[in-house]
Amino acid sequence: MTKLKILENKTITDVPYFKATGIHSGVKRKRKDLCIIYSEKEAVAAAAFTQNKFAAAPVVVSKDHIQSNNTQAIVINSGNANACTGDEGIDNAYSMAKTTADCLGLSSKEVLVASTGIIGLPLPMAIINAGIKNACTQISSTGGNCAAEAIMTTDTFTKKITVEFDLDGKKILLSGIAKGSGMIHPNMATMLSFIVSNVNISKDMLSIALKESIDDSYNMISVDGDTSTNDMVIGMANKTANNTIIDSKDDNYIKFKKALDFLNKELAKLIAKDGEGATKLIEVSLNNAKTLKDAKLCAKSVISSSLVKSAFFGEDANWGRIVCSLGYSNAEFSPEKIDVSFQNKIGNIQLFKDGKEVSFDEELAKNILSEEHINIIIDLKDGEHCATAWGCDLSFDYVKINASYRS
Amino acid sequence: MTKLKILENKTITDVPYFKATGIHSGVKRKRKDLCIIYSEKEAVAAAAFTQNKFAAAPVVVSKDHIQSNNTQAIVINSGNANACTGDEGIDNAYSMAKTTADCLGLSSKEVLVASTGIIGLPLPMAIINAGIKNACTQISSTGGNCAAEAIMTTDTFTKKITVEFDLDGKKILLSGIAKGSGMIHPNMATMLSFIVSNVNISKDMLSIALKESIDDSYNMISVDGDTSTNDMVIGMANKTANNTIIDSKDDNYIKFKKALDFLNKELAKLIAKDGEGATKLIEVSLNNAKTLKDAKLCAKSVISSSLVKSAFFGEDANWGRIVCSLGYSNAEFSPEKIDVSFQNKIGNIQLFKDGKEVSFDEELAKNILSEEHINIIIDLKDGEHCATAWGCDLSFDYVKINASYRS
Repeated sequence: MTKLKILENKTITDVPYFKATGIHSGVKRKRKDLCIIYSEKEAVAAAAFTQNKFAAAPVVVSKDHIQSNNTQAIVINSGNANACTGDEGIDNAYSMAKTTADCLGLSSKEVLVASTGIIGLPLPMAIINAGIKNACTQISSTGGNCAAEAIMTTDTFTKKITVEFDLDGKKILLSGIAKGSGMIHPNMATMLSFIVSNVNISKDMLSIALKESIDDSYNMISVDGDTSTNDMVIGMANKTANNTIIDSKDDNYIKFKKALDFLNKELAKLIAKDGEGATKLIEVSLNNAKTLKDAKLCAKSVISSSLVKSAFFGEDANWGRIVCSLGYSNAEFSPEKIDVSFQNKIGNIQLFKDGKEVSFDEELAKNILSEEHINIIIDLKDGEHCATAWGCDLSFDYVKINASYRS
Repeated sequence: MTKLKILENKTITDVPYFKATGIHSGVKRKRKDLCIIYSEKEAVAAAAFTQNKFAAAPVVVSKDHIQSNNTQAIVINSGNANACTGDEGIDNAYSMAKTTADCLGLSSKEVLVASTGIIGLPLPMAIINAGIKNACTQISSTGGNCAAEAIMTTDTFTKKITVEFDLDGKKILLSGIAKGSGMIHPNMATMLSFIVSNVNISKDMLSIALKESIDDSYNMISVDGDTSTNDMVIGMANKTANNTIIDSKDDNYIKFKKALDFLNKELAKLIAKDGEGATKLIEVSLNNAKTLKDAKLCAKSVISSSLVKSAFFGEDANWGRIVCSLGYSNAEFSPEKIDVSFQNKIGNIQLFKDGKEVSFDEELAKNILSEEHINIIIDLKDGEHCATAWGCDLSFDYVKINASYRS
């Protein structure tokens, strides 16, 4: 892999010519709820949207605006999802783009829109439009952290990462902020991720890279199996690094793609770790499947099992539930070949070998499971394809957060 | 529908020539753990088995023995699933059938085997075989309730139903016992159901009827989305009613099938109601889908959503999560046409109409949701196909039961 440097204290506004802000507009009671990300220079953008048939209004509008060859801003509100709000909701999402565009001297089509929060309520447009106008006066090259805060719902920490690498001797910065599975009554988990870069890349290649990268990162995490109406990942590149433009799958594309994969996986892991009520990050490494599809089916089946997730909350070395969830994954494999181990900084312990239990040190298992990060390693010994999935345990707090009236 | 009489206090041993027992053999500490169901007369049997690739040893053996044209007994142990136990497990399951056959004067092939309980531990065969011998001396025409008890794991009540109807002026009895999603560390939920009848039916037609009936009953319930290694439904018919044999899809087949459907749906609902930690039975009535597949996909997506289930535990009229789960169901429908209502003995309340929220009486919604049985009625207004699915809420106790070390 090309030398990739993680820049610990940097964020999206450390990428050249990107500015941002996050403010409190009044949709939420106290916390920041409105974010603008802006590139001073022209930029290409690519996006992936929820597959949910009830796509929220901002998804509809961003699907329209992403067609533009220039995308210079994203406006995001939290606290209200603008979902299931009918034609009025669509009008309001277009209005958010237009107000932002007017303030920043752009055309509406150059602005993308995202929302997260309560579903089914009309957006309070007086508050939102005033908020956007206010935010546009505050965007700055130090506003990245405020931006990361303003997109949160019940997230317990901001999610951000910045990496640096070289292309043609030019310094490329790639930085992302994300929000995870937060719940505001009456709503569902929503995942949003915004990635910016100074890389010089064509819109088509950015789109291909983003799509491929999402399949191995955000699409491999599960908090509770529910796909929101508002999920969205957007990538923007303003080309100011002046590297030779990436317009085919050349060496530079591969280097960029590796950096993008790393960044998206790290953001995906942060989202999994901050799943509602989560006490542990669980990583499933599925090795040696016959096909990539089988590898992904197996890894996602394990990470999505409520029984597996409850067992991890209980710190219970329950290989039975793990192999059971493999068994109903619809993947092809040979049950009699399977090995299962747990691993983390405490150690490594094999629980299951060649399709049967092996006796193991219960004390060591307990110590491994008491940690916050646990890797489940599954070897199908059936081929050469691997996949990794991330998730969290299922705790009392998940139920508490999501059963608001009784809690 | 043919006149179907529910016989409140009857059970499987009230069906002519069926005997049964349930005893404590010693696999569990105190509670009954071994059950035998026996037909004194020759009988045909049909069965459906788990689709889990890690099918337990009793599944393997019963799949073999169901080939026999005569099936006169089922031996079931609870407390140990005999799953992931390798060749030794298979030998042990065959041995359970042989011991039962020897005691009852049958051949091994005439006995089916089922297990539920801890996964991955060898069956204690000395205890099991002694238990079977003991049980065979105790089978009787009053042992049905003990049998229903002996197949339980963490079920909180026995599940049984008996119905009566006429075919050719002959009295047909159809009776079933079942167990639901119980958890014994370290194990997963297992569903078992055993149905017996005096109906005269060919093995082929019994098999067709059972298969079709399962698709609309057991396959439409969800407690936590996990499919066990040991799931099994068995139907046995000893033909002693002397009706004209059902050997084609004639009128009598249709009458029998209706009774079987009713019985299986009632058992399925009891299983859903007794899901681990459940406080409510939720029924999803999905109406007017374009295809049956779409109807089932929608109904199962709603009943399987952790967010919907948590909202019901919280008695929260959260239509947003319901339409969201429809949205990711992979079914075809038009979001702008959808209606959603809640209904039960308290009343009926519409929350969502033509794809949008409608204002509703919060007090009435609260009262409806405070009941133990709630029907979610969804109208897609897109065709003529309907499906019903059953499930339960997701409570603190689900997590508690399944996170054994911390609870």
